[in-house]
Amino acid sequence: MFKKVLIVYAHESPASFNAAAKDAAVAALTAQGCTVEVSDLYAMKFKAAATTEDITGGVKDAENFCYAKEIKLASEEGRLAEDLKKEQEKLKEADLVIFQFPMYWSSVPAIMKGWMDRVLGFAYAQEKRYSEGIFKDKKAMLSFTTDCPESVYSDTGINGDINVTLWPLQNGILNYCGFQVFAPQIFWDPATGSPESRSSMLEGWRTRLQNLCGEATVYFAPLDYFDKEKGFLLKPEVKEKYASKECGLTVGIHMGKPLPANSQTKAGV
Amino acid sequence: MFKKVLIVYAHESPASFNAAAKDAAVAALTAQGCTVEVSDLYAMKFKAAATTEDITGGVKDAENFCYAKEIKLASEEGRLAEDLKKEQEKLKEADLVIFQFPMYWSSVPAIMKGWMDRVLGFAYAQEKRYSEGIFKDKKAMLSFTTDCPESVYSDTGINGDINVTLWPLQNGILNYCGFQVFAPQIFWDPATGSPESRSSMLEGWRTRLQNLCGEATVYFAPLDYFDKEKGFLLKPEVKEKYASKECGLTVGIHMGKPLPANSQTKAGV
Repeated sequence: MFKKVLIVYAHESPASFNAAAKDAAVAALTAQGCTVEVSDLYAMKFKAAATTEDITGGVKDAENFCYAKEIKLASEEGRLAEDLKKEQEKLKEADLVIFQFPMYWSSVPAIMKGWMDRVLGFAYAQEKRYSEGIFKDKKAMLSFTTDCPESVYSDTGINGDINVTLWPLQNGILNYCGFQVFAPQIFWDPATGSPESRSSMLEGWRTRLQNLCGEATVYFAPLDYFDKEKGFLLKPEVKEKYASKECGLTVGIHMGKPLPANSQTKAGV
Repeated sequence: MFKKVLIVYAHESPASFNAAAKDAAVAALTAQGCTVEVSDLYAMKFKAAATTEDITGGVKDAENFCYAKEIKLASEEGRLAEDLKKEQEKLKEADLVIFQFPMYWSSVPAIMKGWMDRVLGFAYAQEKRYSEGIFKDKKAMLSFTTDCPESVYSDTGINGDINVTLWPLQNGILNYCGFQVFAPQIFWDPATGSPESRSSMLEGWRTRLQNLCGEATVYFAPLDYFDKEKGFLLKPEVKEKYASKECGLTVGIHMGKPLPANSQTKAGV
């Protein structure tokens, strides 16, 4: 069971399907005895832009300001803006983080990207990343709505394979920080369906949450597969090991082969 | 030659490499006789979050607010917030839009995602998208800096193939709106290099801009490849045409085959 869960939530309307999905998660997790905290980004009027104002007591290099470097330093020295401190506290205590949002332009809404840019900034560390990342003892999951059916996001659909769309979010952000990533909860086009289909989607979500703790997570290549002396490329022995396999290792690390099917949408593929 | 160019720029520091790249573009394009407009998002304190405040005169469905629908309607009825109106005017006049930014978490910084969510909102239309998209007579290009060398973003590198990372931005946003997309200008890890290497990167950028007008654009599948009566999947005749090819059509529409190499980073692949 998860002790503390943080839900980072980005929808303005309390009557939206996203609100219902968030409320269902709060109820289902609380019923299991989890302590659930919600960061309701629109209600908080969360500042999305990563700026020098996020750092108190002055930046170190104003002339050539680099947000990633400065925020890391400020975090170590306790010189972060109050809203960031609060979010980082919630994050530190959570053993599961759920991002609940409507997909905007193949990604998270800007206000949620702002949460990621600002709150996760201190976790961006080349020496501690991926399977050695700062949050390697935590789980994370994307839970989102689309405005089109699943076929549209298939590998012969007009929007292209959803596994490709999810790679920058799930690998580039969550896995980078070390999070073990649960398969995403995708609500395909709830707005177009009937009230019954929406109820059924929410029921499926509640059921999934009851057993989430025992679920396997999405596969990513471990850090030690890469040679840090040689541009963080796959080590020759790893390449050899996978040479005869039909598919690549992951969506991004595909080795010029077909992508492993469903690798970002199903656990352990 | 381009008549009007809009540069959407997201870096807080005027001394940054991103600022230098933006300035180089302004100078090189102006020298060709283009009128160049810059939206300096941090300087403008551009509002990143897509909210009901973007719509004047009240939203149509407050109970179940859907940003995409409401912003489209408000745009048609001239009921947009002032800052959005201004950006849309710049956009309408531009025949080339350049996005200049440091890559944050495998994507654009939140403030730039906010520009995309809010300003491009009205162009999100299922009936007019991709090769029939609203901006099909315009060109667009991503120009960005990374904090790691190119190898790290290869198909055997730890961050995975940059072509996968770029797909949601270039296909899911730019191509969706109809923009013809120039190959991205990627400045690999300028911060780590010498001043000479930075000068040389900027020189390459200036030279490219001089001949940009004649460049081919990145390949995407045309809208008529998909069957709108059947979930916008590839038409059988298209599947057949590509059945014997070694690679998929594009990064996302890969048909279970290896991805076409460099399809998001080189023109016409």
